[in-house]
Amino acid sequence: MLVKRDAQATRARILAAATSEFAAYGIAGARVDRIAAGAQANKNMIYIYFGGKEQLFDAIFSAAIDQLLETVPIDVDDLPGYAGSLFDHAEQHPELSRLARWQGLERPPGLSLDAALSGTINKIKAIAAAQHAGTLARTLAPDQLLAMLLSIAMAWSAGVPELVDMDVTEEMTASRRAAVVWAIERLTVP
Amino acid sequence: MLVKRDAQATRARILAAATSEFAAYGIAGARVDRIAAGAQANKNMIYIYFGGKEQLFDAIFSAAIDQLLETVPIDVDDLPGYAGSLFDHAEQHPELSRLARWQGLERPPGLSLDAALSGTINKIKAIAAAQHAGTLARTLAPDQLLAMLLSIAMAWSAGVPELVDMDVTEEMTASRRAAVVWAIERLTVP
Repeated sequence: MLVKRDAQATRARILAAATSEFAAYGIAGARVDRIAAGAQANKNMIYIYFGGKEQLFDAIFSAAIDQLLETVPIDVDDLPGYAGSLFDHAEQHPELSRLARWQGLERPPGLSLDAALSGTINKIKAIAAAQHAGTLARTLAPDQLLAMLLSIAMAWSAGVPELVDMDVTEEMTASRRAAVVWAIERLTVP
Repeated sequence: MLVKRDAQATRARILAAATSEFAAYGIAGARVDRIAAGAQANKNMIYIYFGGKEQLFDAIFSAAIDQLLETVPIDVDDLPGYAGSLFDHAEQHPELSRLARWQGLERPPGLSLDAALSGTINKIKAIAAAQHAGTLARTLAPDQLLAMLLSIAMAWSAGVPELVDMDVTEEMTASRRAAVVWAIERLTVP
């Protein structure tokens, strides 16, 4: 039992260290040595537990997506509020947008993680169902509405560097959040 | 004269090869050897002309931004049309969104290229002036409107991989473009 608990703790430390390392340096730039040192773990344990660097990246990115889906479930009856919550999550987890961009740039196109893919499909289905039921306006196709909503909610966490200032006050963040919510209202009102 | 023309031709071949290399592998992942081979140039010439890998990246990214600003100037009297043209440019130059993402991830925060920074400041000023003159609705703050417009126009070139399908038909592209134009209309109508 003690050994098992130790193994779980080691695994958790590896995942935490790997998340920081991959967010900062991406997949090609990440160093398994640094992850091992950061996790106070043996480098071999990383290969034994996860298989390799790519698999370790997929594991921590899947965990980040799972956390997002759990913390911010889609609410098709309140898409503006959902966009606002996504904005909050992105503000609180700046590593997520970095991981998502590294994933898009460095993993083979077409290779989507199960967690991300099923999450996206479920969201599109939920939007389509609400549009079909008439509780949500059919202003945009479900996948297009989702793509825009995600882009708008992430505009400041993944956007143009010149627009993502270094010194952001609480007031600026609140104003951006209000703009995101307002924009999704505008795009979904019949 | 012939030597000068040769030097210009070599420089142009280096820039073209570097653009492909950086778009594919990013800054850390790019190999100067491969760029030299692709440009049929001597590796030393790259260091002599550009200084180093980071400077070479900045040179090709500046050139890509300059090309964008020249091809698609902002039109504050027709922001929906401007967003549609940005969408077209992103479709025709898939390397641009990759370069922009690598830049955001790999170059130091706060370090913005002159071309990108002055382009962004000019756009914000143009939007603010149009809002002040009353020809553009004050629905959003100028920088927020620009951030959303860029995010929406780039939603499919830089967006969630699951929503950026591999087999995109001409009809799908046309429908996405129409959605982008429609969305910016909705966000700018008083």
